[in-house]
Amino acid sequence: MLKGDPGKILSYGMVGGGPGSFIGEVHRRAIGLLGGARLEAGAFSRDRDKSLALGTELGLEPSRIYPDPLTMARTEAALPGGIDFAVIAAPNDVHYPAARAFLEAGIAVVCDKPLALSVEEGEDLAALARDRQLLFCTTYTYSGYPAVKEARRLVASGRLGTLRFVQVEYLQEWLSRPLETEAGADKVWRLDPARTGAASSLGDIGTHAEHLVSYVTGKAITRVAARIEALVPGRGLDDTASILAELEGGVSALIWTSQAVPGASNGLALRLVGSEASLAWRQEDPEVLVLSPFGQGEQRLRRGRDFGPGDLPFHRLPAGHPGGFYEAFAGLYGPFLRALAERKAGHGAGPGGPGDRAGSKPDFPDAEAGLAGLRFMAACGESSRHEAAWTKV
Amino acid sequence: MLKGDPGKILSYGMVGGGPGSFIGEVHRRAIGLLGGARLEAGAFSRDRDKSLALGTELGLEPSRIYPDPLTMARTEAALPGGIDFAVIAAPNDVHYPAARAFLEAGIAVVCDKPLALSVEEGEDLAALARDRQLLFCTTYTYSGYPAVKEARRLVASGRLGTLRFVQVEYLQEWLSRPLETEAGADKVWRLDPARTGAASSLGDIGTHAEHLVSYVTGKAITRVAARIEALVPGRGLDDTASILAELEGGVSALIWTSQAVPGASNGLALRLVGSEASLAWRQEDPEVLVLSPFGQGEQRLRRGRDFGPGDLPFHRLPAGHPGGFYEAFAGLYGPFLRALAERKAGHGAGPGGPGDRAGSKPDFPDAEAGLAGLRFMAACGESSRHEAAWTKV
Amino acid sequence: MLKGDPGKILSYGMVGGGPGSFIGEVHRRAIGLLGGARLEAGAFSRDRDKSLALGTELGLEPSRIYPDPLTMARTEAALPGGIDFAVIAAPNDVHYPAARAFLEAGIAVVCDKPLALSVEEGEDLAALARDRQLLFCTTYTYSGYPAVKEARRLVASGRLGTLRFVQVEYLQEWLSRPLETEAGADKVWRLDPARTGAASSLGDIGTHAEHLVSYVTGKAITRVAARIEALVPGRGLDDTASILAELEGGVSALIWTSQAVPGASNGLALRLVGSEASLAWRQEDPEVLVLSPFGQGEQRLRRGRDFGPGDLPFHRLPAGHPGGFYEAFAGLYGPFLRALAERKAGHGAGPGGPGDRAGSKPDFPDAEAGLAGLRFMAACGESSRHEAAWTKV
Amino acid sequence: MLKGDPGKILSYGMVGGGPGSFIGEVHRRAIGLLGGARLEAGAFSRDRDKSLALGTELGLEPSRIYPDPLTMARTEAALPGGIDFAVIAAPNDVHYPAARAFLEAGIAVVCDKPLALSVEEGEDLAALARDRQLLFCTTYTYSGYPAVKEARRLVASGRLGTLRFVQVEYLQEWLSRPLETEAGADKVWRLDPARTGAASSLGDIGTHAEHLVSYVTGKAITRVAARIEALVPGRGLDDTASILAELEGGVSALIWTSQAVPGASNGLALRLVGSEASLAWRQEDPEVLVLSPFGQGEQRLRRGRDFGPGDLPFHRLPAGHPGGFYEAFAGLYGPFLRALAERKAGHGAGPGGPGDRAGSKPDFPDAEAGLAGLRFMAACGESSRHEAAWTKV
Repeated sequence: MLKGDPGKILSYGMVGGGPGSFIGEVHRRAIGLLGGARLEAGAFSRDRDKSLALGTELGLEPSRIYPDPLTMARTEAALPGGIDFAVIAAPNDVHYPAARAFLEAGIAVVCDKPLALSVEEGEDLAALARDRQLLFCTTYTYSGYPAVKEARRLVASGRLGTLRFVQVEYLQEWLSRPLETEAGADKVWRLDPARTGAASSLGDIGTHAEHLVSYVTGKAITRVAARIEALVPGRGLDDTASILAELEGGVSALIWTSQAVPGASNGLALRLVGSEASLAWRQEDPEVLVLSPFGQGEQRLRRGRDFGPGDLPFHRLPAGHPGGFYEAFAGLYGPFLRALAERKAGHGAGPGGPGDRAGSKPDFPDAEAGLAGLRFMAACGESSRHEAAWTKV
Repeated sequence: MLKGDPGKILSYGMVGGGPGSFIGEVHRRAIGLLGGARLEAGAFSRDRDKSLALGTELGLEPSRIYPDPLTMARTEAALPGGIDFAVIAAPNDVHYPAARAFLEAGIAVVCDKPLALSVEEGEDLAALARDRQLLFCTTYTYSGYPAVKEARRLVASGRLGTLRFVQVEYLQEWLSRPLETEAGADKVWRLDPARTGAASSLGDIGTHAEHLVSYVTGKAITRVAARIEALVPGRGLDDTASILAELEGGVSALIWTSQAVPGASNGLALRLVGSEASLAWRQEDPEVLVLSPFGQGEQRLRRGRDFGPGDLPFHRLPAGHPGGFYEAFAGLYGPFLRALAERKAGHGAGPGGPGDRAGSKPDFPDAEAGLAGLRFMAACGESSRHEAAWTKV
Repeated sequence: MLKGDPGKILSYGMVGGGPGSFIGEVHRRAIGLLGGARLEAGAFSRDRDKSLALGTELGLEPSRIYPDPLTMARTEAALPGGIDFAVIAAPNDVHYPAARAFLEAGIAVVCDKPLALSVEEGEDLAALARDRQLLFCTTYTYSGYPAVKEARRLVASGRLGTLRFVQVEYLQEWLSRPLETEAGADKVWRLDPARTGAASSLGDIGTHAEHLVSYVTGKAITRVAARIEALVPGRGLDDTASILAELEGGVSALIWTSQAVPGASNGLALRLVGSEASLAWRQEDPEVLVLSPFGQGEQRLRRGRDFGPGDLPFHRLPAGHPGGFYEAFAGLYGPFLRALAERKAGHGAGPGGPGDRAGSKPDFPDAEAGLAGLRFMAACGESSRHEAAWTKV
Repeated sequence: MLKGDPGKILSYGMVGGGPGSFIGEVHRRAIGLLGGARLEAGAFSRDRDKSLALGTELGLEPSRIYPDPLTMARTEAALPGGIDFAVIAAPNDVHYPAARAFLEAGIAVVCDKPLALSVEEGEDLAALARDRQLLFCTTYTYSGYPAVKEARRLVASGRLGTLRFVQVEYLQEWLSRPLETEAGADKVWRLDPARTGAASSLGDIGTHAEHLVSYVTGKAITRVAARIEALVPGRGLDDTASILAELEGGVSALIWTSQAVPGASNGLALRLVGSEASLAWRQEDPEVLVLSPFGQGEQRLRRGRDFGPGDLPFHRLPAGHPGGFYEAFAGLYGPFLRALAERKAGHGAGPGGPGDRAGSKPDFPDAEAGLAGLRFMAACGESSRHEAAWTKV
């Protein structure tokens, strides 16, 4: 929980996250778990009645339930005690216009991935956040796990020796069926290219895989040879990707993502191969790292016992008291809210400004990280259209 | 999140849960994850300064930070808009006097286990809650997991056939060392018989095991043959128990609990043996049930896919998005807060009263469940003092 | 493979192990895997035709296919080049008379467990083997696994610190059903008290559990408080045991065995709790030991990598090339055949004699180990008939 | 064990498998486990003394211990009662000349993979075996596991629906270190291109992966886009491969093999994605298949319980009695020896001949399967030299 008197509790507004939304509720609960911020405004749905109903249920004043993000941004910016940040938990096509509106209104942003529908949109957002010196968080959930942060620390510390190879996979089952042809498919925005963007599955889970690799290794993906395909006959959008990749410094990587694997739930898994040790992490068993040093017994490292929660107070549960997805989300919001509260208290004007801790960037994925995901998607698409030819990111 | 307008958000006070407390913070975060109640009063520590500091940090008005539970109970009961319920997250010796004070003041109670220091105290609390028709929740955390609720449902549905045998174990490592002889031991209340009660480990984890068995099977433990011991030489209190038990209907059970097992984190695990199938659950992998029907392939059932979250909205995450310990805690608070809100809205005067759903008791462990734990502890102690002779619970 | 010229290949005869026998074929295949001995005689079945058919198929000369063990013992003893040892892989009631016959004829014996139908019979065999200085192996299969041998070594080396507690379980499913009432039940000798002995399941799997504990810890079980029962209604024999036990030196133990657990295959598992570390082994993943030192990461130790095969050449496969049940069996035969070959070559007249390696007993379970199992069974039965009262072994 | 009188026991000779050889001993033990064939001739080592010493130890007559394969082939072919088949368990460069010699002498062959050093050599052997109608087994060990055979059956039966994607990986650790620069490296033939061939790791483990995919799916790999590399700096040969592949019918596949992954033992693992279900198998837990049907609980299928041993008698152990690597090897030898014995008994002159079971080919990998591996290796090398361009196999 953030320290400070009640007057210092931050306030936020939400775009999207209406009735039935999975991810909007996750944002709200993760912030509730963390404490430190209160929902005070919203434009939850394009359907005005739904938006009002949910906002009222969540305790908002009707005057702060808005018809659209733009109105919210302008009105809240002008309001004394208006929201400190906006959460964008809406379909992909809303990300760019909504984020732009808040940034232009001088309001910090938390936005789901993929950041936008094109590299150009992403560049625009990243530039805007930089120019206005506004905090921007792209919610790559999985880098919020303590074990993922520990993996990053182990790599940086040299514990694996020289990094030599990275394998990542992300498997789900929900697109195993030809949902497009079923009743109600028109309501599933992820199946609608206009709303999801040209790369559906790659944007949904591929960008998570890309960010996980970059975050843990500290190395960007520099080129790819990609086969993007639909395993389900007749599907227009993609559901599966097989990617040979190369990271900065020439490290080889191999990426497999698919949403058409029966039985897979949320199977994100990472393996790092170093000269001295390997390291493995599986999102479905998120509190454990498996470290395999050459010539020694394989070690199962557990959060709360073998590595710490770091700077994440809600992860202070002892080992064996499982933390999960909400805590991962809160693992992004923790550093974000702390940085925002510090700014509000006048300790800094922008990232890298005098108020930030000396030399350290807050540990949450920013707009640049969101942009990197868009560039990765674009390069993969380009490669796939050219018989998996190597393509620069 | 509970439905209702802001005026219907419940308020609560906390006893214990001061700086450094593990479980007090868990209560607060679980309620925060859930929404629906706000902390408004507290007596967090015997140390007045610490209590004030934490209360202020948590946003309380100084006038509602109390020197002791008794003062809090009396003052809040007299206050318009006083707290709706009290959370007792203090050492064991505080449970009884504090719970009694709130019940006498007409305030609902959530209390950690073991419920009290003696069966007599427990009987008094259970009687008081019943007489005053006040809601009382004993926080047997693990029955808050969706998988545990599903296990209970599978047993009741006959999926396992006739229940024949139950094995439960609960292993931790923190008492592997002779902490009593180390500096600062006097500050560890669990090592102080005056504060923890005569049975330390049995009260701490044994009661969880007992309740898990009773909750899932729907059968109380009727007699035990117990060896209660300390594995660490020179330890006055117990750290380990090996118990032959019998459940209602003559079902045999076997219980092993120990806090002196190096490497164990929070290893609570349950296995049920039926005539048609076995069922296993491990707290450290809490979203999975393993169902083994005779003559068929063993099945791994996952929350959010193979069984539902039930009536627990914060568990609506899809399969593979792990829920953990906070959600288990919230799994007790959910039904408790819902029942409390219904009462406040005038829908009933007490459990089983006209306002409750027809014939259904709210699904959280009550004072009777807490009392059952005390009786189990007493019978185990008695048996152990008589060479593990069979002793009625 | 044993070294030596063809003339030094040992020869053996088999009692039992007729068509359809599971364990007789295991003996033959384990010896085949190992090399070093050839089947040359047999009394495979009470049914003379079956015995002849199988013996012929296995390449035996008809003259060495015998009607009964006694005839085989006498005839082979008198034959130049007669068998060097007899393998008794027959129902329990055959063990004693057959083993006695071979020992009296001066022929070494390998016998399945339980060693006999009573403690008295077991004492007689142990005395006879000792008096005649004949090698005798009781086939407690599981102590033949390299990981079990490594566990024994780790305990003896002090790696676990002081041993404090032992838990062992052995679960199977085949008696979940009331087989006694099904057609053909009269042919299942394990369901016939006259052939299996008074304690069926305890003799079949309980003795394995007992030996595993004693072998790995180097400590005998000194007393027990046991509940022996049948989970299946109407069953005359036992199928399940729950046992509080005490080992030499006052170490507590807890034993759970059952053959009525749906879904269990051959679930023998051991956990050792020491002051410095815990150690776990599961027969169904037999090449791995899990070592959990206090305050360090849990380690997965693998045969062929983190510990060696010891003196078992057929276990020289690299890690990840799984060895299994046949190799465990061969892990008993290896030391047995080596000791027998050394004696035949004139290097010693008996265990502890001049030909044995200085001070070391060959590493296979002997008649005394078989006898210990019978005493354990007797004490458990006695305890169970007296309400689980503590009973000396 | 093969049926038949002693006169029908087959005899074999071995090329390679000298002192210290891992795989030669595996061949001998697997045959010993199976029964049915006896070692009678050998050319175990280029070092004549070593060959003689081992042969003598193994009980061979000195006259049948040969200086080289060619001499063995010619001599044994001319000998009444000469060997029925030759086992070639020598470095890769020996495979072709030795196999050719035996085929020309009319002797059946069992040969390790990769079958030869070039596609041309492989074509020659396959043609020769076909022309002479001689049995030829390429020892792709892993298709000998009952679970792998069951996987093949499940695919063929349609249980997975339409096959859509295949992922296979094979990870080991032994090449993590720059062994080439260490003392004694010149004795490790796998590090010597002249002996191992141009593709070391790809030949050693990549061909296993390729065959596993083809065997289980019944579909050949038709084209590849491959990155073949050495993770260890300065290494001349390859240690790692990342391969996009396509199977007959347009099914996509992804292959990852590496011998430079610290902590990996023998990590061969296969995942099949179908329209109705997924299926997974891991060589290090070889008796289990994990079947994940869409919308149903994931099932753990166990050999001996949920699927049978098929036609492999040594796999008749009940579930939970682990079979391992030797049994996998015997799983190739079983069908090979049976087919050979049938031919010897005059039941057929060649595969598909009148003596074979109607319409069924014996279930072991033949020379064509070995040749397919060589073609796969060649295509991968070609692709890798052209920036992972798609290359026909």
